[in-house]
Amino acid sequence: MKIVQEVSLISVGSFEESNDWSIIRNEIREAISLIVNPPGTFSFTINPAKHGNGVKPIKEACMIALRERFGWSLETPINYATKSPGKVDATKIIDNYRFALEWETGNISSSHRAINKMILGLLRGVFLGAALVLPSRKLYPYLTDRIGNYEELEPYFDVWRAVKIEEGFLAIFVIEHDQIDSSVPKITKGTDGRALV
Amino acid sequence: MKIVQEVSLISVGSFEESNDWSIIRNEIREAISLIVNPPGTFSFTINPAKHGNGVKPIKEACMIALRERFGWSLETPINYATKSPGKVDATKIIDNYRFALEWETGNISSSHRAINKMILGLLRGVFLGAALVLPSRKLYPYLTDRIGNYEELEPYFDVWRAVKIEEGFLAIFVIEHDQIDSSVPKITKGTDGRALV
Repeated sequence: MKIVQEVSLISVGSFEESNDWSIIRNEIREAISLIVNPPGTFSFTINPAKHGNGVKPIKEACMIALRERFGWSLETPINYATKSPGKVDATKIIDNYRFALEWETGNISSSHRAINKMILGLLRGVFLGAALVLPSRKLYPYLTDRIGNYEELEPYFDVWRAVKIEEGFLAIFVIEHDQIDSSVPKITKGTDGRALV
Repeated sequence: MKIVQEVSLISVGSFEESNDWSIIRNEIREAISLIVNPPGTFSFTINPAKHGNGVKPIKEACMIALRERFGWSLETPINYATKSPGKVDATKIIDNYRFALEWETGNISSSHRAINKMILGLLRGVFLGAALVLPSRKLYPYLTDRIGNYEELEPYFDVWRAVKIEEGFLAIFVIEHDQIDSSVPKITKGTDGRALV
């Protein structure tokens, strides 16, 4: 799988220039690049059937790579306040600070909630940085219908950029298939994410 | 239908103290209070069947009241920028300024998108004020499963309150049934909202 865009949605303070971010960014890049399809190949080829592929096995492959190669924790429960907005997909602790990563498999409005959740963590000082992984509009038509995607979220960036934060960093990674081929099997719900990494 | 809470989520500038808001607020209050069930009664009684009632006919009743009694426009297309986030449920023009109202019938993450959409309109100066109507947690179990509700959105208020806005106002109206009665008909998809107002 390739990354076609990396966007710094929020960057207040020095985290973006830090060695910590350089390490974490490389781990995220590496985990995404490790996702392949079909299993056993060296790149990510997708069957271009309309809404023909599930996104959960693809996410799972990335999560396995983050945990097993780079020691991230998965499905970390987060308490920001008395009311908890729930878990984040993956977190990594560096220098006692927590970095959070979300890979949304829901529809476009879920991506709004995911960003709001990470910003709340930045406001509360629970995360020093966070990242969201999103499919590009080119990958979008081959995935589950109405999946969150970069181009549909972009018109709202000014809202999040206007949030007053003392310190914090939020990046978006936009991912895309390497090639299409209608002869490769579709990624079904039952596909084991472990096979794709 | 009754309003159990009115929250000023964002209030920058003088709109909250204005005569315009006093008029608009009364129109919203009146439109909500006009929603009845079963048709022809004088209050809103709901069948307390778990996820037994659709929310679209209830919303439709409020929209009809706003349009027919108070001259609001419905499903107003909005262009904030080159990319449009689409329509808002109802708008009212006062003194050349537009006030927007959203009544979300989607799941909780749709409520996140609805608030982000209204805040974008405030940032762009397209709206002077906006309001979101949400069911309370008490009404929630009797409506479509996973519908957006006030209590689940509240933990995120600090995110929206931290948005730097030069001028703008965003209110949330929390609505609830007047009483429950398992002998009244459930509100089905086919229910005509016009009958409930």
